Amino acid sequence: MGLSTTVDMYKHELLRALAIGDQAALDERLPEIRSADLAEILEHLIEDDDELKTALELLQQLPVERQASVIGHLPGDEQEKVSDAIKDSQLVRILDRMGSDERADIFKVLGDDRKEALLRRMAHREREALKRLASYEEGTAGALMTSDYVAIPADLTVAKAMMRVRQTAPDAETVYQLYVIDDQGRLAGTMSLRQLMVARPQALIDDLMIRDVIKISVDVDQEEVARMVARYDLLALPVVDADQRLVGIVTHDDVMDVVESEATEDIHKGMSIGQLEDGVSRVPLWSLYRKRVTWLVLLVFGNLFSGAGIAHFEDTIAAQVTLVFFLPLLIGSGGNAGAQAATLMVRGMATGDVGVKDWGKLLGRELLVAGSLGLTMALAVAPIGMIRAGEAVAIVVAISMVCIVLFGSLLGMCLPFVLDRLGWDPATASAPLVTTLIDASGVIIYFSIATAILSGVG
Amino acid sequence: MGLSTTVDMYKHELLRALAIGDQAALDERLPEIRSADLAEILEHLIEDDDELKTALELLQQLPVERQASVIGHLPGDEQEKVSDAIKDSQLVRILDRMGSDERADIFKVLGDDRKEALLRRMAHREREALKRLASYEEGTAGALMTSDYVAIPADLTVAKAMMRVRQTAPDAETVYQLYVIDDQGRLAGTMSLRQLMVARPQALIDDLMIRDVIKISVDVDQEEVARMVARYDLLALPVVDADQRLVGIVTHDDVMDVVESEATEDIHKGMSIGQLEDGVSRVPLWSLYRKRVTWLVLLVFGNLFSGAGIAHFEDTIAAQVTLVFFLPLLIGSGGNAGAQAATLMVRGMATGDVGVKDWGKLLGRELLVAGSLGLTMALAVAPIGMIRAGEAVAIVVAISMVCIVLFGSLLGMCLPFVLDRLGWDPATASAPLVTTLIDASGVIIYFSIATAILSGVG
Repeated sequence: MGLSTTVDMYKHELLRALAIGDQAALDERLPEIRSADLAEILEHLIEDDDELKTALELLQQLPVERQASVIGHLPGDEQEKVSDAIKDSQLVRILDRMGSDERADIFKVLGDDRKEALLRRMAHREREALKRLASYEEGTAGALMTSDYVAIPADLTVAKAMMRVRQTAPDAETVYQLYVIDDQGRLAGTMSLRQLMVARPQALIDDLMIRDVIKISVDVDQEEVARMVARYDLLALPVVDADQRLVGIVTHDDVMDVVESEATEDIHKGMSIGQLEDGVSRVPLWSLYRKRVTWLVLLVFGNLFSGAGIAHFEDTIAAQVTLVFFLPLLIGSGGNAGAQAATLMVRGMATGDVGVKDWGKLLGRELLVAGSLGLTMALAVAPIGMIRAGEAVAIVVAISMVCIVLFGSLLGMCLPFVLDRLGWDPATASAPLVTTLIDASGVIIYFSIATAILSGVG
Repeated sequence: MGLSTTVDMYKHELLRALAIGDQAALDERLPEIRSADLAEILEHLIEDDDELKTALELLQQLPVERQASVIGHLPGDEQEKVSDAIKDSQLVRILDRMGSDERADIFKVLGDDRKEALLRRMAHREREALKRLASYEEGTAGALMTSDYVAIPADLTVAKAMMRVRQTAPDAETVYQLYVIDDQGRLAGTMSLRQLMVARPQALIDDLMIRDVIKISVDVDQEEVARMVARYDLLALPVVDADQRLVGIVTHDDVMDVVESEATEDIHKGMSIGQLEDGVSRVPLWSLYRKRVTWLVLLVFGNLFSGAGIAHFEDTIAAQVTLVFFLPLLIGSGGNAGAQAATLMVRGMATGDVGVKDWGKLLGRELLVAGSLGLTMALAVAPIGMIRAGEAVAIVVAISMVCIVLFGSLLGMCLPFVLDRLGWDPATASAPLVTTLIDASGVIIYFSIATAILSGVG
């Protein structure tokens, strides 16, 4: 993890003060440093230099609220190491100061014995809430949400609701959106604090609230959560269970992290890399190997088709060895154009810009664009063919280029739709897969054209 | 653009009601449909079916506030078409109802004559604000920010500040974060509405506000804006000019769109596709061609090196044509592994997970992982070599596989760092570029090993 200059400077100051026992310097500096930055310093200490002890000493210098906030900003691995090193009584106090979603995240990384020990130290209600939040599957709305929201009944007046907001303010994740629930705990409406502030104090929430609430089900994928929040510009999205009971909210800041990590996942998938559980600089080597090897080996066998194609045309090649000169160029170009087309489609589908219904229209567009690309590249390569191997080979190479680029682009464009239809993730149409498929087809197209044209010539 | 089932259903209902003049149905349905969804229906009408007239009729059915909101949700192209079709007097009323950032966005797409005509209809102050907001370069904090924030002086009491919030509530983009400015307009502090609500009414803002405000300069890249908002979990980020004067704020919802579009840009760059000004289904064909062709043609010439490598080893190939069988497989595998390594680095650098300082550590890791990958793939390919061409070729192919995968991975890993050092965007180390480089090196590695081993055998 690369530290920014400011954070790096802070790190060195803090370590120096800690080493020489300069308490005054620590007391002056620590309150200035934001929790996110302090978390980065701790992370750096733990992962790179294995200075867990120093990290813990630094943490001890902070008030417990700040400890909770800093630990909340750490990545999973470092949360685990730090939590394991803190004793039960202190950890319970820290967990108590965390938002319910962060508390559940920490809880998930602990061992079973530790979980039991901590739960015994909690009040019944807290215990049940924590167990419930920690039980949702990673990557769903449930795993992302917090239970620290402001819920009010519909029969409150505006003035009373304002008082409720003031009371809840210290604990709630956000007080800017209120959720109205009925006596069954079902989500009945919502109101923003802004609306509340400009309303008549005696007015009833029931008369003011918006009844048509944008909400999401607890088991929905986090990608869909992010899409809803972005589409409707929400501060928070309420999460309901199968009985429409409000069980939590997902706030905008948590969604922002999802958007970034989903984009990373998509980028990695586009290069046939499995989902990493952490950043590339932190993930264990064995895991990095495993996430990369599967497709690489599968594609080795895919590439055998190209070899088989070549073997089939061995006579044509032997008659005119110079054809091999243009082979990497032709299949490489087809692969590149095809990978571009696939990438455009996969990303378009991921962001919702492209739907399966648009297939026909996009096919027509791709036909035009890829045709033009193929012609341009044929023009670029034809003179080289002329110089190197004469007119006949130049014609073969130029025609092959147009055909291969056109075929590759259409294959790259269609594959994500086909995969989607089969119920697969369109992102499986990664660049390496598309390239491998086009390589094999390119060999056949090239040597078929060569055999057809050159057998007449030779 | 693919419409979701619900939105598609709404579209058909609305069009039907419009066609048969069923005003009652329109009056019932329209208020139910959210602005983002209505914008999607209009977009669909305009781009796919060229039904601009129908779209405008639908728009006319809405109160002017809703018109503003719906137009604000449209993509740039459609905003332009709709604005061009609305007459000045109505457009001024619509602009008046928009947030200052959305107003500036619309303003930017208008022709110069139109701009002048509209500005003449505005009050002096509004005119200046609009001209200023529209003047910032696309992709900077300035172009992203709104000037509709709540600014208060430090000598206000909490009670007075609350009153100010109530007054500003209808116009401000967010009232949940207040910005304290001094008499020079400089940003002096900040306070959240939540803090304000729990403070004593007689207390002075000056005593309560946070002075160490997280802020950003107006000309900073939007990617950095997004990183700050995500890192510090902000609702809004204040933007200051060179004199530290507060000039606007960027809100969380605008940042969310940035994260998504930056991710798309990175994904496209990773496949050597230039930055598209719109979604792939909407961007003009000529533009799509241009953004794809440059690198494709450059890479044609890159691929010539592979051809040249093959030409250089023509004797080895002629002596053992069966070597060509394994060529696509070997260079394809090296390219895939290298593209994976490059993608991991480029994305790591973009998200801030990997810094230039980590280069040494990452090199060691990649050496281990790529070595293991190469060995695994050599084991997969060796038996095929045995069956097809005997022991000698199997040994050549296995050794080549390890060397090419190792070399490819290291090249893919190092290239982004080298580019970054040279002041280039690391994302230029795209999969097609990496693959092309590895193709050429792979040819040389493979046939060198073959020549060395087989010349002894043959």
